Amino acid sequence: EVASFNRTQTEIIRRLSPGRDVTHNFMGFVTEFDHFAVAQDLDVAAWDSYPLGFLEMFPFPETDKLAFLRQGHPDIAAFHHDLYRGVGQGRMWVMEQQPGPVNWARYNPDPLLGMVRTWTWEAFAHGAELVSYFRWRQAPFAQEQMHAGLNRPDRTLDRGGVEAAQVAKELVELGELAHCGRAQVALVFSYEACWQYEIQPHATGANAVMLTFDAYSALRRLGLDVDIVAPGQSLTGYRLVVVPALPIVAPQALTALEASDAVILFGPRTGSRTQDGHIPPDLPPGPLQTRLPLKVVRVESLRPGAEPHVRIGGGALPGKLWREHLETELPVVAAFADGRPAWVRSGRWHYLATWPEPELYDEVMAALAREAGLTPTVLEPGVRLRTRDGVTFCMNYTAEARTAPAPDGARFLLGARALPPGGVGAWVKA
Amino acid sequence: EVASFNRTQTEIIRRLSPGRDVTHNFMGFVTEFDHFAVAQDLDVAAWDSYPLGFLEMFPFPETDKLAFLRQGHPDIAAFHHDLYRGVGQGRMWVMEQQPGPVNWARYNPDPLLGMVRTWTWEAFAHGAELVSYFRWRQAPFAQEQMHAGLNRPDRTLDRGGVEAAQVAKELVELGELAHCGRAQVALVFSYEACWQYEIQPHATGANAVMLTFDAYSALRRLGLDVDIVAPGQSLTGYRLVVVPALPIVAPQALTALEASDAVILFGPRTGSRTQDGHIPPDLPPGPLQTRLPLKVVRVESLRPGAEPHVRIGGGALPGKLWREHLETELPVVAAFADGRPAWVRSGRWHYLATWPEPELYDEVMAALAREAGLTPTVLEPGVRLRTRDGVTFCMNYTAEARTAPAPDGARFLLGARALPPGGVGAWVKA
Amino acid sequence: EVASFNRTQTEIIRRLSPGRDVTHNFMGFVTEFDHFAVAQDLDVAAWDSYPLGFLEMFPFPETDKLAFLRQGHPDIAAFHHDLYRGVGQGRMWVMEQQPGPVNWARYNPDPLLGMVRTWTWEAFAHGAELVSYFRWRQAPFAQEQMHAGLNRPDRTLDRGGVEAAQVAKELVELGELAHCGRAQVALVFSYEACWQYEIQPHATGANAVMLTFDAYSALRRLGLDVDIVAPGQSLTGYRLVVVPALPIVAPQALTALEASDAVILFGPRTGSRTQDGHIPPDLPPGPLQTRLPLKVVRVESLRPGAEPHVRIGGGALPGKLWREHLETELPVVAAFADGRPAWVRSGRWHYLATWPEPELYDEVMAALAREAGLTPTVLEPGVRLRTRDGVTFCMNYTAEARTAPAPDGARFLLGARALPPGGVGAWVKA
Repeated sequence: EVASFNRTQTEIIRRLSPGRDVTHNFMGFVTEFDHFAVAQDLDVAAWDSYPLGFLEMFPFPETDKLAFLRQGHPDIAAFHHDLYRGVGQGRMWVMEQQPGPVNWARYNPDPLLGMVRTWTWEAFAHGAELVSYFRWRQAPFAQEQMHAGLNRPDRTLDRGGVEAAQVAKELVELGELAHCGRAQVALVFSYEACWQYEIQPHATGANAVMLTFDAYSALRRLGLDVDIVAPGQSLTGYRLVVVPALPIVAPQALTALEASDAVILFGPRTGSRTQDGHIPPDLPPGPLQTRLPLKVVRVESLRPGAEPHVRIGGGALPGKLWREHLETELPVVAAFADGRPAWVRSGRWHYLATWPEPELYDEVMAALAREAGLTPTVLEPGVRLRTRDGVTFCMNYTAEARTAPAPDGARFLLGARALPPGGVGAWVKA
Repeated sequence: EVASFNRTQTEIIRRLSPGRDVTHNFMGFVTEFDHFAVAQDLDVAAWDSYPLGFLEMFPFPETDKLAFLRQGHPDIAAFHHDLYRGVGQGRMWVMEQQPGPVNWARYNPDPLLGMVRTWTWEAFAHGAELVSYFRWRQAPFAQEQMHAGLNRPDRTLDRGGVEAAQVAKELVELGELAHCGRAQVALVFSYEACWQYEIQPHATGANAVMLTFDAYSALRRLGLDVDIVAPGQSLTGYRLVVVPALPIVAPQALTALEASDAVILFGPRTGSRTQDGHIPPDLPPGPLQTRLPLKVVRVESLRPGAEPHVRIGGGALPGKLWREHLETELPVVAAFADGRPAWVRSGRWHYLATWPEPELYDEVMAALAREAGLTPTVLEPGVRLRTRDGVTFCMNYTAEARTAPAPDGARFLLGARALPPGGVGAWVKA
Repeated sequence: EVASFNRTQTEIIRRLSPGRDVTHNFMGFVTEFDHFAVAQDLDVAAWDSYPLGFLEMFPFPETDKLAFLRQGHPDIAAFHHDLYRGVGQGRMWVMEQQPGPVNWARYNPDPLLGMVRTWTWEAFAHGAELVSYFRWRQAPFAQEQMHAGLNRPDRTLDRGGVEAAQVAKELVELGELAHCGRAQVALVFSYEACWQYEIQPHATGANAVMLTFDAYSALRRLGLDVDIVAPGQSLTGYRLVVVPALPIVAPQALTALEASDAVILFGPRTGSRTQDGHIPPDLPPGPLQTRLPLKVVRVESLRPGAEPHVRIGGGALPGKLWREHLETELPVVAAFADGRPAWVRSGRWHYLATWPEPELYDEVMAALAREAGLTPTVLEPGVRLRTRDGVTFCMNYTAEARTAPAPDGARFLLGARALPPGGVGAWVKA
């Protein structure tokens, strides 16, 4: 209904106001409708990026809320840039960029000095064609009067405005950047999966978009560029494909997966539902069984404090919320603490029987990246990379100084190897 | 209204389908209607036992939720077996036994291997005539598709089914067991008391069924078999009677208490209301005053952190939520930390001015059991006993190995002295 | 509407029942209507004082709820006495005084022995003309049957009744006290400010009455008597004026402030709204800028764990919830940890850019009191003073013994220098 209503609207606009880009602004972690479907009728996918408000209002750990208080979570903005670039078939705008403290979160801190500039550059690094700010001027009246703007209520430039002006100047100096090329890693995200999880979460907190986000974070901590794709899209050219949460594997999705020569990681519950929402007759992972001969014979969800641990690298690292019992002859890459399979593989296809917590995800993703022939970058905590058109951007999401992991001889186009708190750098290789 | 509607229904059924047992399945910790009254028109009281779901969803401490994650609380199933055996005037069935992970709790762990068998045997130990499982097969569709069954969705036997089959075989080997005889301990439970507490809890968390459950747990930690009886039922033959929560002591209840030669323990608020819900003219405990000359002149409820402590055994152990100020010449068995009476007695009648936390309850119940001439069994933590027809069953509710406290020379009918995690044993004396 | 409806009522009463005091009983922390406006049509402002219930039900820290469990918070009753004495233009009654455990809080503890007497004396110390108790007798029936009275349900005097009788006797001995004179400290409180905060709290927990209460507590910990006044009332005669939370500074309020020669402290957000609720054209603190040349160019709210710290007395003490960024040439009395101004002054006018936590407030208020020529009293924790008609009353709100800070040679009219737990003393100077 949302897609069809949007189509009706866009047809009117195109008829009466031809020759313009038609777009719509999407939001953060909103999954009520299929944005891929809606964007079929748009020219560009635009979205509203409020890094501090999103960190405060979504279920991130208290420690993250404090550590990233004035910077935002290192992956929230990037995740949505990559998601909406995928949704927009390569074309993405930021329609509303947070320019200072907002008024709608439980607490509304001031961004770190320089953070508005860094958020803006990060958007361009991830392929934004345009970054617009909400709002021009802090309104002195009405219900948004405590929402910062580029200008203060007294019509003088605010700090966000200063930083936006700086980026505008730097953009000219840097010159035009080509669109983002295809990344080497694809992350499959499905709105239908979100709905499946909402209908039957089985565990408080099991939520497809957050589980996908966790996988995204793990990839990003390795310094990898990521494309976020809908199931069924071509996977040609990707060397690593991650499918964290996809209960229904539609025929077109299966075809794309089977056609890929990437290393592929499937999270738990993949293929656990038929197109009609049933448990497959031969049990999950259903259609994946042709390549991954295993049966999920039992699932359980586990409260905090009872996390399933996976033996890996000489220790045991926690997964969260969920554990599957697998019946399979496949080789066990890693076992749960009680010896049952937690991670199995068949050729390049890997299957996980739990959702990893970050430390475990780091181990899993590093191993898969190596297998896929990718070269992860060693990043200091809170530092992220994104390359566009040969220019590598480096964002420091911490409130401390960091060192940019630029190769020797790199030529800096923005900033320098020493990254100030909340700072950004950009370089091209020597 | 519930009882009368049930009567209308049962009359129709008995007329149109004569010669059958008419029953209904009751639930866990549901107190909205008087099950004793409803069951007057039933042949059997049946109930639905979901040990893991109940532990997760009811207000038990976090530590218990983790310690008993895959076994359930050691007393929840037993409490309801004993309650509904009383409700059913000796006849009790389990209509729905949890056979694996369920789908409706916040978290839905997998039962420990062997636990379905142990739960089943425990039901028989407590007098069940029948244990039925919900459900035959895990449905591959609809809203209960994540609820385990005896069979998997792919129509093969699931682990719960294997364990149920094992019990079926063992039942034949063990032979028929007579009905449960009268226990030596009666626990008085009143649905009307629950309603009185709901109307005026005075303390967040004061709840008659949970307070009764606490008393039940304490008795069970001493290895005692317990009958749960409605107020007013004959108490003849019991050596210890516990009345944890009974604001209204109806004439029939008083008569039964006065006719008993048992040691009797009354919890706070006993007799604190007349039949009309008033404070008795001579103050609580109202009708008990003929035998327990004391007046409750003041009541107070106390938040966590301000628990009233009772001096006992050289130390001070906490009660919870509630403290009464007694005016009495009776001898003080134990005093509060400030010296005021916490536990008084008159002959065999004992009165407590607070609800004990477990450690305090252990001391109180051990003393009363000794006075009543009972012989408590020293049990390892998480182990429970129940005797039926001369056979003593022993349930290990922990995830560790335990030793069954069988007397020397006992002949084991089920298992052995070494109890595996979640295991069950049964013996007859030499 | 409330004020106008009240006027209609009082006019009827005065016409039909002339010659009586017309009053109404107000409550604790209720800010839905402007009590100053309503009381214009009353002869006396009466209120209902439930020290234990209010402590339990309002958002005070857990540690306070335990430390003051049976005494109440040392400042809640006093705050409302002073507030309603101001509301009643000098005439204040306690219409309902808690006489024992109540029935409506989450937990309802018993007051410490002597506390009913102490609460009663405290009311008189703060200017009460009358203290009445709710209720005469604990009702043995209906929904308030667990609410203590002066008499027990069995018609004998309860402990609260004994203590009330003692005060009645002591009142006669002490003789008549004149009305409270003007204090040296005025605390400005505005119901309109409460509504402004409710409309746009910006931070979870920002609440004008609680922020005002914090300032009141800090003044009272210094042993100072406080008048609570509405904005716009004359400030003549006060040596220290505290304005913790006043977004809208109306012309009349500004006139009163400018006419005062007191040391004045303004909290954050003062003058941040015009009469129409807009941000002032020259930014906050708007009309204060004639005397306090500063601009609040940015505001932010901060979650627990991210409190803004203020460098003071060689250390750094926390503020809470809120931080403002000031643009000013004014001398900085104290700076935030990052060096930006937290406390500035211009002559006798002081402006704070955060709400202090208690330790910080203690430093701020002590400095201002010295500047204002006041002589704070060193008080042991939990002890409070109030002087009326030359008699200094001293309340011990702790459960431990305390020493009254009476000057040498003071003549005790009530109690003695040694204050028992929850006790009260009163003296006149030698």
